[in-house]
Amino acid sequence: MSSRIVELRKGLLERNDLSAQLLRERFAQAGTQVVNLLSSPGSGKTTLLHRMLEACQPGGSGPRLRAAALVGDCATDNDARRLAESGAPVRQIVTEGCCHLEADMVSSHLEGWDLEQIDLLFVENVGNLVCPADYDLGESLRMVLLAVTEGEDKPLKYPQMFHTADLVVLTKLDLAGPAGFDQELALGNLRAVRPDVQVLLTSARTGAGIPELLTVLTPQPNQR
Amino acid sequence: MSSRIVELRKGLLERNDLSAQLLRERFAQAGTQVVNLLSSPGSGKTTLLHRMLEACQPGGSGPRLRAAALVGDCATDNDARRLAESGAPVRQIVTEGCCHLEADMVSSHLEGWDLEQIDLLFVENVGNLVCPADYDLGESLRMVLLAVTEGEDKPLKYPQMFHTADLVVLTKLDLAGPAGFDQELALGNLRAVRPDVQVLLTSARTGAGIPELLTVLTPQPNQR
Repeated sequence: MSSRIVELRKGLLERNDLSAQLLRERFAQAGTQVVNLLSSPGSGKTTLLHRMLEACQPGGSGPRLRAAALVGDCATDNDARRLAESGAPVRQIVTEGCCHLEADMVSSHLEGWDLEQIDLLFVENVGNLVCPADYDLGESLRMVLLAVTEGEDKPLKYPQMFHTADLVVLTKLDLAGPAGFDQELALGNLRAVRPDVQVLLTSARTGAGIPELLTVLTPQPNQR
Repeated sequence: MSSRIVELRKGLLERNDLSAQLLRERFAQAGTQVVNLLSSPGSGKTTLLHRMLEACQPGGSGPRLRAAALVGDCATDNDARRLAESGAPVRQIVTEGCCHLEADMVSSHLEGWDLEQIDLLFVENVGNLVCPADYDLGESLRMVLLAVTEGEDKPLKYPQMFHTADLVVLTKLDLAGPAGFDQELALGNLRAVRPDVQVLLTSARTGAGIPELLTVLTPQPNQR
């Protein structure tokens, strides 16, 4: 990249960091826990999110949390329509080709929502293991998904992303056998770039691991 | 994005287009067919490439082509080391966090190679369904992979990438059953963004579809 681009990009990231800090303060004041969901395209972010939103609804199997979601995509509002079936408040952020979400996109899509009424806000990023790593969205927790069908080497090849993760969730565990997934190898590669990160194993299809995941994501009493 | 960033990015893309055009002329003069391989992380680019390079080697099952590869990754030279086992000439391009390959990265990694001795050059891009779509690498053919484990909706959600494809290759067909992949739905979504694109079905694990793919990629006599 040319030095002018590098410099402008640095300025852009600094401005994003300022916007993210304002968002973070706003979320803290309202007692809203915010989870930034990141992964490759097709790692199962939306399906896992659907299960979590359903579980948090009245009558669901999960904790009694008021959960909501913002979902980012380059194009279409398919995900928001699909997730709204859960009954939770959901809004789509269409980036029109932009490869990541930015803090200002999150702010502008919160308009009209009373954050005091939201305990847990999911922000599903654009599917991309590179660019979204650099953009703080004011989240409390950065959750990176790795599908067992993607292979064991992804943490080594996309270290920036896994290096910033607070929580790594292996997805599609029901396909581990057919895909020949070597879990020890994958976890070894992950530890090499992010030694102490918490890891959870899930399958949105069977429901395995989702109660444990929701326990980890539930805001602690002093946060609420 | 700010207007200054948009303008600088436009300049960067224009410079890349010029470099790509020079590369394209060089490839044409040498009679080298160049394939830009694009997909999400973990869609099976490297494994499919490995099978194709092996098949083209003396004693392999494919056409007698002198094949070589450049492989792009944000970090590690694991892929180049793995692919070199095929016996073909392979070089790694480490982008150090950059989310796509550019024409100049390709040029600088060709140094010392005699293109006249290469019939088919694969350039494996960084795993990313967004950013690499904008960067011409002087290729003859743009091949976009979609793994059946990624879901049927990816063409709709990443239209820029699929819109520029000359050839779409479905990968990991051996996992279509376990993953519950709906091929008709996926192809319908693909046709919605790229109506007449050629589609091939492959499995690097079983070898299905690889001879057909190599037939499509083999330069025609008037190109050589």
